[in-house]
Amino acid sequence: MSDILERLSDVIESRREADPQSSYVARLLRGPLDSVLKKVGEEATETVIAGKGGSTDEVIYETADLWFHSLVLLKYLNIEPQQVLAELERRFGQSGIVEKASRS
Amino acid sequence: MSDILERLSDVIESRREADPQSSYVARLLRGPLDSVLKKVGEEATETVIAGKGGSTDEVIYETADLWFHSLVLLKYLNIEPQQVLAELERRFGQSGIVEKASRS
Amino acid sequence: MSDILERLSDVIESRREADPQSSYVARLLRGPLDSVLKKVGEEATETVIAGKGGSTDEVIYETADLWFHSLVLLKYLNIEPQQVLAELERRFGQSGIVEKASRS
Amino acid sequence: MSDILERLSDVIESRREADPQSSYVARLLRGPLDSVLKKVGEEATETVIAGKGGSTDEVIYETADLWFHSLVLLKYLNIEPQQVLAELERRFGQSGIVEKASRS
Repeated sequence: MSDILERLSDVIESRREADPQSSYVARLLRGPLDSVLKKVGEEATETVIAGKGGSTDEVIYETADLWFHSLVLLKYLNIEPQQVLAELERRFGQSGIVEKASRS
Repeated sequence: MSDILERLSDVIESRREADPQSSYVARLLRGPLDSVLKKVGEEATETVIAGKGGSTDEVIYETADLWFHSLVLLKYLNIEPQQVLAELERRFGQSGIVEKASRS
Repeated sequence: MSDILERLSDVIESRREADPQSSYVARLLRGPLDSVLKKVGEEATETVIAGKGGSTDEVIYETADLWFHSLVLLKYLNIEPQQVLAELERRFGQSGIVEKASRS
Repeated sequence: MSDILERLSDVIESRREADPQSSYVARLLRGPLDSVLKKVGEEATETVIAGKGGSTDEVIYETADLWFHSLVLLKYLNIEPQQVLAELERRFGQSGIVEKASRS
């Protein structure tokens, strides 16, 4: 199951040349960057709202939306999800490193 | 590489009983829900800022932070990342379904 | 000029009983709370994007949207903007207090 | 009461040359733009969380934080709050215009 992010990223890539009239992903990938960024912000807000008061199903649904639009943003910027996964691996691959995961 | 999310989720789970003094994850998992939600919102904002004007490395770093804190939120709510991945698979497993991924 | 927030808040209130078909404010005030919260999150993201790379006009426009939807949220929850302004006054009315404005 | 935003904006301006060691506002105004943008995103998330499940006092407090950091962002970009208030006035000064306030 766990290669889903990579496969989904490939599906997103394959829509790049699709007809924007019929493809939501094509519209995002070929539209302005700001529209993709807004979707990431929107879906994060919806995840927070679901996490605060929603059902398990709503949290799953909104987190899926958030990850999906994160993948679209990566593709927009020509970044592979493997690069993000490698960064996560780097952090927790060494003992204790996961603990520093959020120092911005 | 692609089972990293599941493995990372297991690492997060294993920290639940760690000493909150030394473990950032333990502090999040055993603190108030709102603190976890705030981190998801914060990291989304940082991803948007990086996506707007940052380097590839910054986008990778901030997206990793966003996914990491999404996983912490799921764990906080006793949701497995596989449930989110299954929702994503459901969407794009059927022809065209990925196109409807973001109708909220 | 500076009583605009109060007057705008009154305008928002006056739309509460308007026809939701023709009034955006009525739709927000009589729809689900989550829709109002999502708008606050969306407009904040748009303000951040404008602040990062936009023109002065875009920052003004998006900040106006953010304040407007904040006012709708307050009205939705039966809070007056004066209560927020009084909180701001309380903070900076005493010497130095403004410096502590953001300790969450 | 209603000139509080302008007066608060003046207070913020007056801190620009203060010692960043002791002044939170000076640190924001003289630090990187991204730090100010992150605060706007953070406070919006906290407003959403408070609006979803918090008390009236929490909503007032977080909205005050959001408006305060919006003012800091405006000052950072050399924009006066009156310009935002004028934009709001423009929208609702004409009949019905407030209804179009959020078309992005």
